[in-house]
Amino acid sequence: MSLHAPPADSAQDTALYQEVQRFYAHQMRSLDEGDVDSWVATFTEDGVFSANAHPEPQEGREAIREGATAATRKLAEAKIRRRHWLGMLDVAANPDGTVRAVTYAQIIATPLGGTAQLELSCTCEDLLVREGGRLLVRHRQVYRDDLARS
Amino acid sequence: MSLHAPPADSAQDTALYQEVQRFYAHQMRSLDEGDVDSWVATFTEDGVFSANAHPEPQEGREAIREGATAATRKLAEAKIRRRHWLGMLDVAANPDGTVRAVTYAQIIATPLGGTAQLELSCTCEDLLVREGGRLLVRHRQVYRDDLARS
Amino acid sequence: MSLHAPPADSAQDTALYQEVQRFYAHQMRSLDEGDVDSWVATFTEDGVFSANAHPEPQEGREAIREGATAATRKLAEAKIRRRHWLGMLDVAANPDGTVRAVTYAQIIATPLGGTAQLELSCTCEDLLVREGGRLLVRHRQVYRDDLARS
Repeated sequence: MSLHAPPADSAQDTALYQEVQRFYAHQMRSLDEGDVDSWVATFTEDGVFSANAHPEPQEGREAIREGATAATRKLAEAKIRRRHWLGMLDVAANPDGTVRAVTYAQIIATPLGGTAQLELSCTCEDLLVREGGRLLVRHRQVYRDDLARS
Repeated sequence: MSLHAPPADSAQDTALYQEVQRFYAHQMRSLDEGDVDSWVATFTEDGVFSANAHPEPQEGREAIREGATAATRKLAEAKIRRRHWLGMLDVAANPDGTVRAVTYAQIIATPLGGTAQLELSCTCEDLLVREGGRLLVRHRQVYRDDLARS
Repeated sequence: MSLHAPPADSAQDTALYQEVQRFYAHQMRSLDEGDVDSWVATFTEDGVFSANAHPEPQEGREAIREGATAATRKLAEAKIRRRHWLGMLDVAANPDGTVRAVTYAQIIATPLGGTAQLELSCTCEDLLVREGGRLLVRHRQVYRDDLARS
């Protein structure tokens, strides 16, 4: 999906685009550092995390917490560091104040004492909302490039 | 090549830098999703796409369309998804209103059911022009890191 | 480390965030192109480059120059091009005018005639200062993901 957005032509667009860049830097670092509380807090209470790799979406903060906690434990046991890179960002503000953000994603895994590997290439489509002045993910859809879309 | 540009010190520079980021996100996604019409429309009518991997540059939209159509067909037949990441962007506005933009590029290929691979590392040097309010590529030069420069 | 910075909410934040992006594009390209003078000039005179892969930090421009000169020679002899990608940037301005910038880093190596390889995944923590209007690195700490932190 491409947003086919017109080019940024206002200070407001510029600030929003960059705020989303920083939001992702903070959000994905939280997950990668195993800071599950911070990760969960980047979703709305009713936030949904859906992926074509998951049989069911994670719905709500509690489900998102369980998923991240299990993944963090598994990586720690395997002594693997994982990095989520989001890039090639496009952003569009919707009339209702929500924000559509699409990115490419690389997931890089490095075993302790081993070699960094590009584990997955994905795309990510987010619906972001503003609560208390901050952006949060209300809905995230991740598509792994190695899997069929549906 | 480095632009050795002075740091962005105005709202205008900031907006341009970001507009180029979004332009690339939109442009490369068009190619990667096989939307050849959108890809072609990001070049000027007389746009040139040159690469040290190509014996001849693609000159003009028709040649660029043929190249993208053939590449898209080949990838579809091989069931490979390709992602072009541009990053490490530097931008300089020329006195005549054109824009020099230099980036690093990663090309990532993922076969359906297979493993993502970093296929190529490149650098990209663009001359961008504004037509009807939008940025377009007038000249692109790509250098693959695995090939000699000339 | 996450900066847990509040979202950018001013034109000043927006300009700074982007200035750091451009600074890194320029800085790392200098190193990757073997332009050691330009690389050295992106550190303060007393700049420190520390890494969990190095037994001792490089302290001061002369030590940083020696390190980059040796690395550049070694890569040229081996006919390898190296690209440093910094991404997932977060930035926070300190009250004293210095700037904290944290990034993820990919180091990609491509042998002439060979295949691009993701060589290393790292994180980078910089303390930047402004001298003569330009940002410089006063202190850089790099952590390779494959090595223990301490």
